Amino acid sequence: MKGKFFTFEGPEGAGKTTVLEILMKDLEKSGIEAVFTREPGGIQIAEKIREVILNKEHTEMDSRTEALLYAAARRQHLVEKVIPSINKGKHVFCDRFIDSSLAYQGYARGLGIDEVFSINEFAINGFLPDVTFYFNIDPKAGLQRIANNAEREKNRLDMEDLSFHYKVQEGYQQVIEKFQDRIIIIDADQPVEEVVADIKERLRKHIDL
Amino acid sequence: MKGKFFTFEGPEGAGKTTVLEILMKDLEKSGIEAVFTREPGGIQIAEKIREVILNKEHTEMDSRTEALLYAAARRQHLVEKVIPSINKGKHVFCDRFIDSSLAYQGYARGLGIDEVFSINEFAINGFLPDVTFYFNIDPKAGLQRIANNAEREKNRLDMEDLSFHYKVQEGYQQVIEKFQDRIIIIDADQPVEEVVADIKERLRKHIDL
Repeated sequence: MKGKFFTFEGPEGAGKTTVLEILMKDLEKSGIEAVFTREPGGIQIAEKIREVILNKEHTEMDSRTEALLYAAARRQHLVEKVIPSINKGKHVFCDRFIDSSLAYQGYARGLGIDEVFSINEFAINGFLPDVTFYFNIDPKAGLQRIANNAEREKNRLDMEDLSFHYKVQEGYQQVIEKFQDRIIIIDADQPVEEVVADIKERLRKHIDL
Repeated sequence: MKGKFFTFEGPEGAGKTTVLEILMKDLEKSGIEAVFTREPGGIQIAEKIREVILNKEHTEMDSRTEALLYAAARRQHLVEKVIPSINKGKHVFCDRFIDSSLAYQGYARGLGIDEVFSINEFAINGFLPDVTFYFNIDPKAGLQRIANNAEREKNRLDMEDLSFHYKVQEGYQQVIEKFQDRIIIIDADQPVEEVVADIKERLRKHIDL
Protein backbone atom coordinates (compact mmCIF):
# COMPACT_ATOMS: atom_id res chain seq x y z
CA MET A 1 0.00 0.00 0.00
CA LYS A 2 1.21 3.44 -0.91
CA GLY A 3 1.77 6.19 1.65
CA LYS A 4 0.04 9.56 1.58
CA PHE A 5 1.58 12.93 0.84
CA PHE A 6 0.86 15.86 3.20
CA THR A 7 2.22 19.38 2.83
CA PHE A 8 2.25 22.28 5.28
CA GLU A 9 1.93 25.90 4.25
CA GLY A 10 1.58 29.31 5.82
CA PRO A 11 3.29 32.61 6.51
CA GLU A 12 6.47 33.04 8.55
CA GLY A 13 6.04 32.34 12.25
CA ALA A 14 2.81 30.36 11.83
CA GLY A 15 4.26 27.50 13.87
CA LYS A 16 4.66 24.84 11.18
CA THR A 17 8.07 23.68 12.33
CA THR A 18 7.02 23.28 15.99
CA VAL A 19 3.85 21.41 15.04
CA LEU A 20 5.70 19.11 12.63
CA GLU A 21 8.24 18.20 15.36
CA ILE A 22 5.42 17.20 17.71
CA LEU A 23 3.63 15.26 14.97
CA MET A 24 6.83 13.42 14.11
CA LYS A 25 7.28 12.22 17.71
CA ASP A 26 3.61 11.26 18.03
CA LEU A 27 3.64 9.25 14.81
CA GLU A 28 6.83 7.51 15.85
CA LYS A 29 5.23 6.49 19.17
CA SER A 30 2.25 5.12 17.28
CA GLY A 31 4.60 3.08 15.08
CA ILE A 32 3.49 4.81 11.89
CA GLU A 33 6.11 4.88 9.14
CA ALA A 34 6.53 8.47 8.12
CA VAL A 35 9.13 10.74 6.52
CA PHE A 36 9.38 14.38 7.60
CA THR A 37 11.11 16.56 5.08
CA ARG A 38 11.44 19.99 3.52
CA GLU A 39 13.10 21.00 0.24
CA PRO A 40 15.94 20.49 -0.66
CA GLY A 41 15.83 17.66 1.92
CA GLY A 42 19.44 16.51 1.78
CA ILE A 43 19.18 15.54 -1.91
CA GLN A 44 22.58 16.37 -3.38
CA ILE A 45 21.40 17.85 -6.70
CA ALA A 46 18.70 19.88 -4.93
CA GLU A 47 21.24 21.13 -2.37
CA LYS A 48 23.56 22.23 -5.19
CA ILE A 49 20.68 24.09 -6.84
CA ARG A 50 19.87 25.76 -3.52
CA GLU A 51 23.51 26.86 -3.26
CA VAL A 52 23.18 28.63 -6.63
CA ILE A 53 20.01 30.39 -5.40
CA LEU A 54 21.49 31.47 -2.06
CA ASN A 55 25.00 32.38 -3.27
CA LYS A 56 25.53 35.95 -2.10
CA GLU A 57 27.63 36.78 -5.17
CA HIS A 58 24.57 36.19 -7.34
CA THR A 59 23.11 39.67 -6.95
CA GLU A 60 22.08 39.64 -10.63
CA MET A 61 19.71 36.68 -10.10
CA ASP A 62 16.51 37.32 -12.05
CA SER A 63 13.27 36.37 -10.27
CA ARG A 64 12.23 34.03 -13.10
CA THR A 65 15.61 32.29 -12.96
CA GLU A 66 15.07 31.85 -9.23
CA ALA A 67 11.56 30.43 -9.71
CA LEU A 68 12.87 27.92 -12.29
CA LEU A 69 15.66 26.88 -9.92
CA TYR A 70 13.19 26.32 -7.07
CA ALA A 71 11.06 24.22 -9.41
CA ALA A 72 14.14 22.21 -10.45
CA ALA A 73 15.13 21.55 -6.81
CA ARG A 74 11.50 20.59 -6.06
CA ARG A 75 11.46 18.09 -8.92
CA GLN A 76 14.62 16.38 -7.75
CA HIS A 77 13.54 16.22 -4.08
CA LEU A 78 10.22 14.75 -5.26
CA VAL A 79 11.71 12.01 -7.45
CA GLU A 80 14.58 11.08 -5.14
CA LYS A 81 12.87 11.28 -1.75
CA VAL A 82 9.11 11.87 -1.69
CA ILE A 83 7.91 9.44 -4.37
CA PRO A 84 10.21 6.53 -3.37
CA SER A 85 9.08 6.88 0.28
CA ILE A 86 5.42 6.88 -0.71
CA ASN A 87 5.97 3.85 -2.92
CA LYS A 88 7.41 2.04 0.10
CA GLY A 89 4.20 2.76 2.00
CA LYS A 90 5.56 5.60 4.12
CA HIS A 91 3.56 8.79 4.66
CA VAL A 92 5.43 11.93 3.70
CA PHE A 93 5.08 15.23 5.60
CA CYS A 94 6.67 18.12 3.73
CA ASP A 95 7.23 21.60 5.20
CA ARG A 96 6.32 23.89 2.26
CA PHE A 97 5.75 22.77 -1.32
CA ILE A 98 4.35 24.33 -4.50
CA ASP A 99 1.85 26.61 -2.74
CA SER A 100 4.75 28.53 -1.19
CA SER A 101 6.14 29.25 -4.66
CA LEU A 102 2.69 30.37 -5.83
CA ALA A 103 2.14 32.71 -2.84
CA TYR A 104 5.68 34.08 -2.51
CA GLN A 105 6.98 34.20 -6.08
CA GLY A 106 3.77 34.05 -8.05
CA TYR A 107 1.82 36.62 -6.04
CA ALA A 108 4.04 38.56 -3.61
CA ARG A 109 6.95 38.91 -6.07
CA GLY A 110 4.53 39.55 -8.93
CA LEU A 111 5.43 36.77 -11.37
CA GLY A 112 1.82 35.60 -11.55
CA ILE A 113 0.27 32.62 -9.75
CA ASP A 114 -0.75 30.86 -12.98
CA GLU A 115 2.67 31.36 -14.56
CA VAL A 116 4.54 30.01 -11.54
CA PHE A 117 2.03 27.16 -11.38
CA SER A 118 2.78 26.23 -15.00
CA ILE A 119 6.49 25.60 -14.33
CA ASN A 120 5.63 23.78 -11.12
CA GLU A 121 3.12 21.61 -12.96
CA PHE A 122 6.00 20.60 -15.22
CA ALA A 123 8.12 19.89 -12.11
CA ILE A 124 5.60 17.77 -10.21
CA ASN A 125 4.06 16.13 -13.32
CA GLY A 126 0.70 15.53 -11.65
CA PHE A 127 2.05 14.55 -8.25
CA LEU A 128 0.05 16.92 -6.03
CA PRO A 129 -0.24 16.40 -2.24
CA ASP A 130 -3.19 14.38 -0.93
CA VAL A 131 -3.84 17.10 1.63
CA THR A 132 -2.27 20.49 2.29
CA PHE A 133 -2.64 22.11 5.73
CA TYR A 134 -2.67 25.89 5.60
CA PHE A 135 -1.64 27.52 8.90
CA ASN A 136 -3.86 30.55 9.07
CA ILE A 137 -2.51 33.42 11.17
CA ASP A 138 -2.36 37.18 10.86
CA PRO A 139 1.09 38.02 9.43
CA LYS A 140 1.65 40.50 12.25
CA ALA A 141 1.09 37.80 14.88
CA GLY A 142 3.44 35.45 12.99
CA LEU A 143 6.20 38.03 12.91
CA GLN A 144 5.63 38.77 16.60
CA ARG A 145 6.18 35.09 17.35
CA ILE A 146 9.44 35.13 15.42
CA ALA A 147 10.59 38.24 17.28
CA ASN A 148 9.83 36.51 20.59
CA ASN A 149 11.67 33.34 19.64
CA ALA A 150 15.31 33.95 20.53
CA GLU A 151 16.38 30.50 19.32
CA ARG A 152 15.17 30.98 15.77
CA GLU A 153 17.75 32.22 13.33
CA LYS A 154 16.25 35.06 11.32
CA ASN A 155 16.20 34.36 7.60
CA ARG A 156 16.01 36.64 4.59
CA LEU A 157 12.21 36.53 4.51
CA ASP A 158 11.81 37.38 8.19
CA MET A 159 13.49 40.68 7.35
CA GLU A 160 11.03 41.75 4.66
CA ASP A 161 8.70 44.51 5.75
CA LEU A 162 5.18 43.81 6.95
CA SER A 163 3.54 44.79 3.65
CA PHE A 164 5.39 41.93 1.94
CA HIS A 165 4.02 39.44 4.48
CA TYR A 166 0.49 40.77 3.92
CA LYS A 167 1.01 40.25 0.20
CA VAL A 168 2.06 36.66 0.86
CA GLN A 169 -1.14 36.18 2.85
CA GLU A 170 -3.21 37.60 -0.03
CA GLY A 171 -1.38 35.24 -2.37
CA TYR A 172 -2.22 32.27 -0.16
CA GLN A 173 -5.91 33.29 -0.17
CA GLN A 174 -5.94 33.03 -3.96
CA VAL A 175 -4.10 29.72 -3.86
CA ILE A 176 -6.61 28.34 -1.33
CA GLU A 177 -9.46 29.37 -3.61
CA LYS A 178 -7.78 27.68 -6.58
CA PHE A 179 -7.21 24.41 -4.71
CA GLN A 180 -10.19 24.21 -2.37
CA ASP A 181 -10.40 20.43 -2.63
CA ARG A 182 -6.83 19.91 -1.50
CA ILE A 183 -6.18 22.65 1.08
CA ILE A 184 -7.50 22.55 4.64
CA ILE A 185 -7.35 25.76 6.67
CA ILE A 186 -6.07 25.32 10.22
CA ASP A 187 -6.47 28.04 12.85
CA ALA A 188 -2.82 28.60 13.78
CA ASP A 189 -3.65 31.30 16.29
CA GLN A 190 -4.56 28.65 18.90
CA PRO A 191 -2.20 27.05 21.42
CA VAL A 192 0.11 24.57 19.69
CA GLU A 193 -1.58 21.49 21.28
CA GLU A 194 -4.89 22.57 19.74
CA VAL A 195 -3.28 22.96 16.34
CA VAL A 196 -1.77 19.48 16.60
CA ALA A 197 -5.14 18.05 17.71
CA ASP A 198 -6.93 19.69 14.75
CA ILE A 199 -4.44 18.27 12.28
CA LYS A 200 -4.55 14.80 13.78
CA GLU A 201 -8.32 14.75 13.51
CA ARG A 202 -8.02 15.56 9.81
CA LEU A 203 -5.23 13.01 9.34
CA ARG A 204 -7.38 10.20 10.76
CA LYS A 205 -9.40 10.25 7.54
CA HIS A 206 -6.26 9.22 5.69
CA ILE A 207 -4.05 7.27 8.09
CA ASP A 208 -4.66 4.95 11.02
CA LEU A 209 -3.71 7.26 13.90
CA MET B 1 17.51 51.69 -32.38
CA LYS B 2 17.33 48.21 -31.00
CA GLY B 3 19.37 45.32 -32.36
CA LYS B 4 17.87 42.13 -33.77
CA PHE B 5 18.01 38.66 -32.24
CA PHE B 6 19.04 35.73 -34.45
CA THR B 7 19.33 32.12 -33.34
CA PHE B 8 20.91 29.13 -35.06
CA GLU B 9 19.59 25.60 -34.77
CA GLY B 10 20.23 22.17 -36.22
CA PRO B 11 21.56 18.68 -35.53
CA GLU B 12 25.13 17.87 -34.51
CA GLY B 13 27.70 18.47 -37.24
CA ALA B 14 25.44 20.74 -39.29
CA GLY B 15 28.20 23.37 -39.43
CA LYS B 16 26.67 26.10 -37.25
CA THR B 17 29.90 26.89 -35.41
CA THR B 18 31.97 27.23 -38.59
CA VAL B 19 29.36 29.42 -40.27
CA LEU B 20 29.00 31.64 -37.20
CA GLU B 21 32.77 32.17 -37.06
CA ILE B 22 32.79 33.34 -40.69
CA LEU B 23 29.75 35.56 -40.13
CA MET B 24 31.37 37.13 -37.09
CA LYS B 25 34.47 38.11 -39.09
CA ASP B 26 32.39 39.39 -42.00
CA LEU B 27 30.19 41.54 -39.77
CA GLU B 28 33.23 42.92 -37.99
CA LYS B 29 34.75 43.93 -41.34
CA SER B 30 31.50 45.66 -42.28
CA GLY B 31 31.60 47.57 -38.99
CA ILE B 32 28.30 46.10 -37.78
CA GLU B 33 27.96 45.92 -34.01
CA ALA B 34 27.13 42.33 -33.16
CA VAL B 35 27.42 39.92 -30.25
CA PHE B 36 28.05 36.23 -30.91
CA THR B 37 27.10 33.99 -28.04
CA ARG B 38 25.82 30.63 -26.91
CA GLU B 39 24.36 29.62 -23.55
CA PRO B 40 25.58 29.91 -20.79
CA GLY B 41 27.70 32.62 -22.48
CA GLY B 42 30.06 33.44 -19.62
CA ILE B 43 27.24 34.58 -17.34
CA GLN B 44 28.28 33.51 -13.85
CA ILE B 45 24.89 32.29 -12.60
CA ALA B 46 24.25 30.45 -15.88
CA GLU B 47 27.72 28.87 -15.73
CA LYS B 48 27.03 27.67 -12.18
CA ILE B 49 23.73 26.16 -13.30
CA ARG B 50 25.53 24.44 -16.18
CA GLU B 51 28.00 22.99 -13.67
CA VAL B 52 25.11 21.40 -11.76
CA ILE B 53 23.78 19.89 -15.02
CA LEU B 54 27.14 18.53 -16.17
CA ASN B 55 28.48 17.35 -12.77
CA LYS B 56 29.35 13.70 -13.31
CA GLU B 57 28.37 12.81 -9.74
CA HIS B 58 24.79 13.76 -10.57
CA THR B 59 23.80 10.43 -12.08
CA GLU B 60 20.38 10.70 -10.42
CA MET B 61 19.49 13.84 -12.40
CA ASP B 62 15.88 13.60 -13.54
CA SER B 63 15.17 14.76 -17.10
CA ARG B 64 12.57 17.30 -15.92
CA THR B 65 15.05 18.74 -13.40
CA GLU B 66 17.54 19.05 -16.25
CA ALA B 67 15.01 20.81 -18.51
CA LEU B 68 14.17 23.30 -15.73
CA LEU B 69 17.87 23.97 -15.14
CA TYR B 70 18.45 24.63 -18.86
CA ALA B 71 15.48 27.02 -18.82
CA ALA B 72 16.90 28.79 -15.75
CA ALA B 73 20.34 29.20 -17.38
CA ARG B 74 18.62 30.45 -20.56
CA ARG B 75 16.69 33.06 -18.60
CA GLN B 76 19.79 34.43 -16.93
CA HIS B 77 21.84 34.52 -20.15
CA LEU B 78 18.93 36.34 -21.81
CA VAL B 79 18.51 39.03 -19.14
CA GLU B 80 22.21 39.58 -18.46
CA LYS B 81 23.61 39.40 -21.99
CA VAL B 82 21.13 39.15 -24.89
CA ILE B 83 18.56 41.80 -23.92
CA PRO B 84 21.10 44.44 -22.74
CA SER B 85 23.06 44.03 -26.01
CA ILE B 86 19.91 44.41 -28.11
CA ASN B 87 18.90 47.47 -26.10
CA LYS B 88 22.29 49.01 -26.95
CA GLY B 89 21.52 48.50 -30.66
CA LYS B 90 23.76 45.45 -31.12
CA HIS B 91 22.55 42.45 -33.11
CA VAL B 92 22.78 39.19 -31.20
CA PHE B 93 23.66 35.86 -32.86
CA CYS B 94 23.04 32.92 -30.54
CA ASP B 95 24.17 29.36 -31.25
CA ARG B 96 21.17 27.27 -30.09
CA PHE B 97 18.20 28.59 -28.09
CA ILE B 98 14.76 27.30 -27.11
CA ASP B 99 14.23 25.18 -30.24
CA SER B 100 17.12 22.95 -29.17
CA SER B 101 15.35 22.25 -25.87
CA LEU B 102 12.12 21.50 -27.73
CA ALA B 103 13.77 19.11 -30.21
CA TYR B 104 16.22 17.38 -27.83
CA GLN B 105 14.38 17.30 -24.51
CA GLY B 106 10.82 17.84 -25.64
CA TYR B 107 10.81 15.37 -28.50
CA ALA B 108 13.89 13.12 -28.53
CA ARG B 109 13.92 12.60 -24.73
CA GLY B 110 10.12 12.32 -24.69
CA LEU B 111 9.16 15.11 -22.28
CA GLY B 112 6.75 16.63 -24.82
CA ILE B 113 7.37 19.64 -27.04
CA ASP B 114 4.45 21.63 -25.61
CA GLU B 115 5.46 20.89 -22.02
CA VAL B 116 9.07 21.94 -22.55
CA PHE B 117 7.81 24.99 -24.43
CA SER B 118 5.69 26.01 -21.42
CA ILE B 119 8.68 26.26 -19.06
CA ASN B 120 10.68 28.02 -21.75
CA GLU B 121 7.86 30.49 -22.33
CA PHE B 122 8.15 31.32 -18.65
CA ALA B 123 11.93 31.70 -19.07
CA ILE B 124 11.90 33.96 -22.13
CA ASN B 125 8.72 35.87 -21.16
CA GLY B 126 7.82 36.70 -24.76
CA PHE B 127 11.35 37.41 -25.95
CA LEU B 128 11.49 35.14 -29.01
CA PRO B 129 14.18 35.51 -31.71
CA ASP B 130 13.41 37.74 -34.70
CA VAL B 131 14.66 34.98 -37.00
CA THR B 132 15.88 31.44 -36.41
CA PHE B 133 18.07 29.72 -39.01
CA TYR B 134 17.60 25.96 -39.11
CA PHE B 135 20.60 24.12 -40.59
CA ASN B 136 18.99 21.27 -42.49
CA ILE B 137 21.19 18.21 -42.97
CA ASP B 138 20.70 14.48 -42.82
CA PRO B 139 21.81 13.38 -39.32
CA LYS B 140 24.04 10.72 -40.87
CA ALA B 141 25.90 13.35 -42.91
CA GLY B 142 26.26 15.55 -39.82
CA LEU B 143 27.77 12.73 -37.79
CA GLN B 144 30.08 11.88 -40.68
CA ARG B 145 31.35 15.46 -40.61
CA ILE B 146 32.04 15.20 -36.89
CA ALA B 147 33.89 11.91 -37.38
CA ASN B 148 36.04 13.54 -40.07
CA ASN B 149 36.84 16.56 -37.92
CA ALA B 150 39.83 15.54 -35.80
CA GLU B 151 39.95 18.93 -34.06
CA ARG B 152 36.45 18.75 -32.66
CA GLU B 153 36.18 17.35 -29.18
CA LYS B 154 33.41 14.76 -29.10
CA ASN B 155 30.66 15.64 -26.65
CA ARG B 156 28.06 13.54 -24.88
CA LEU B 157 25.52 14.01 -27.68
CA ASP B 158 27.93 13.05 -30.45
CA MET B 159 28.10 9.65 -28.77
CA GLU B 160 24.37 8.91 -28.90
CA ASP B 161 23.39 6.33 -31.47
CA LEU B 162 22.07 7.31 -34.88
CA SER B 163 18.43 6.66 -33.96
CA PHE B 164 18.61 9.40 -31.33
CA HIS B 165 19.85 11.90 -33.92
CA TYR B 166 17.01 10.93 -36.26
CA LYS B 167 14.62 11.57 -33.39
CA VAL B 168 16.13 15.01 -32.88
CA GLN B 169 15.56 15.69 -36.59
CA GLU B 170 11.92 14.59 -36.29
CA GLY B 171 11.60 16.88 -33.28
CA TYR B 172 12.98 19.81 -35.24
CA GLN B 173 10.46 19.13 -38.05
CA GLN B 174 7.62 19.57 -35.54
CA VAL B 175 9.21 22.68 -34.09
CA ILE B 176 9.60 24.19 -37.59
CA GLU B 177 5.92 23.51 -38.27
CA LYS B 178 4.95 25.16 -34.98
CA PHE B 179 7.02 28.30 -35.64
CA GLN B 180 6.83 28.65 -39.43
CA ASP B 181 6.87 32.44 -39.26
CA ARG B 182 10.10 32.59 -37.31
CA ILE B 183 12.20 29.69 -38.61
CA ILE B 184 14.03 29.77 -41.96
CA ILE B 185 15.35 26.48 -43.32
CA ILE B 186 18.89 26.65 -44.68
CA ASP B 187 20.36 23.87 -46.84
CA ALA B 188 23.39 22.94 -44.72
CA ASP B 189 24.49 20.21 -47.12
CA GLN B 190 26.08 22.81 -49.42
CA PRO B 191 29.67 24.09 -49.25
CA VAL B 192 30.12 26.40 -46.28
CA GLU B 193 30.48 29.55 -48.47
CA GLU B 194 27.05 28.84 -49.97
CA VAL B 195 25.53 28.47 -46.54
CA VAL B 196 27.04 31.78 -45.43
CA ALA B 197 25.78 33.46 -48.63
CA ASP B 198 22.25 32.12 -48.09
CA ILE B 199 22.16 33.41 -44.54
CA LYS B 200 23.54 36.81 -45.48
CA GLU B 201 20.85 37.21 -48.11
CA ARG B 202 18.21 36.55 -45.47
CA LEU B 203 19.92 38.83 -42.96
CA ARG B 204 19.81 41.78 -45.40
CA LYS B 205 16.07 42.05 -44.80
CA HIS B 206 16.86 42.86 -41.15
CA ILE B 207 20.27 44.49 -41.01
CA ASP B 208 22.29 46.72 -43.30
CA LEU B 209 24.86 44.23 -44.56
